[in-house]
Amino acid sequence: MAPTSETLTAERILAATEEVLRRHGPAKATVVDVARALGVSHGSVYRHFRTKAALREAVTQHWLDRTSEALAGIVAEDRDPALRLRDWFTGLFAAKREKAGDDPQLFATYQVLIGENSAVVERHIADLTGQLTEIVRDGVARGVFDAADPAVSARAAFDATGRFHDPCYAREWEQPGIEADFEAVVVLVLRGLRA
Amino acid sequence: MAPTSETLTAERILAATEEVLRRHGPAKATVVDVARALGVSHGSVYRHFRTKAALREAVTQHWLDRTSEALAGIVAEDRDPALRLRDWFTGLFAAKREKAGDDPQLFATYQVLIGENSAVVERHIADLTGQLTEIVRDGVARGVFDAADPAVSARAAFDATGRFHDPCYAREWEQPGIEADFEAVVVLVLRGLRA
Repeated sequence: MAPTSETLTAERILAATEEVLRRHGPAKATVVDVARALGVSHGSVYRHFRTKAALREAVTQHWLDRTSEALAGIVAEDRDPALRLRDWFTGLFAAKREKAGDDPQLFATYQVLIGENSAVVERHIADLTGQLTEIVRDGVARGVFDAADPAVSARAAFDATGRFHDPCYAREWEQPGIEADFEAVVVLVLRGLRA
Repeated sequence: MAPTSETLTAERILAATEEVLRRHGPAKATVVDVARALGVSHGSVYRHFRTKAALREAVTQHWLDRTSEALAGIVAEDRDPALRLRDWFTGLFAAKREKAGDDPQLFATYQVLIGENSAVVERHIADLTGQLTEIVRDGVARGVFDAADPAVSARAAFDATGRFHDPCYAREWEQPGIEADFEAVVVLVLRGLRA
């Protein structure tokens, strides 16, 4: 059965857009290309995403959100905040590394989209530092961390670990010694936060 | 008086190479171009730099060395290691920022050369983390810092401050709030090192 516009959700359009990006790179992720891949009229895609820019922004956001959603569980856990902070950074590094390593071409494609959508990246960083802030705040409440302003300390911890999640370091993520470097930075950050 | 090969030092060739890079970008820094700029035969340049690659590597090293040389004085001072560490990172950020801001085109040109010369970058990072290691070691000796392995802690502190010296962040260095972000990371690092 051919897909009808009834079944055409934003989610399905974004999945198809990612498939188009995977096959053809960043240039081809237009509404017309995605409609063709779905076998629907481009009018029905436009009903969900009014411009090519909106579609490209949404697919980028969707890609970044998968990382923050995967980490949200650690924030919600009722465990030692220092251990949660460590697990959160380990999870972030693993998620970014997996994205870069599993499909380097798609990763490069998303770097192009990210370059076009600085507002999406800012939201992503705000999501991630928001999660970190919750862990830091919980640590302060439990007397484990000392942070006059948990949001400031969370942003500092995020910046301090940039080598292990910022895409500009992606080519270093498979180098020997990177795990030891990661461990040393996490230890420094945790020591810097402790009460 | 035309320059003669007697007066043609490596230092003069590197200064001329930088001038060629400044005017014409990365493509034109060849031995022939530099010899022409100096009004000498390319044979006399080859006597100092045997290949185009050697010349490009030397000019990149020279450019990076200016930063590490400027910071060496802070390492040698007889002052509180925590203050010296702070001044060292402040000085590194200021030096990189000045290079990026004063002549963005030359900065971009050097980024191209740096991409060609990963060994030069590794040496530069080794120089800088070597300086940091001396400050950390001095801090441990004075009982101000706690670091089981000063070299590991120095590298962690260097990585943790990457947003404020790694060229991949150059476009963020003039953004509002960057000073506060820098301050927060330095505080976190210093707290992480203290005994």
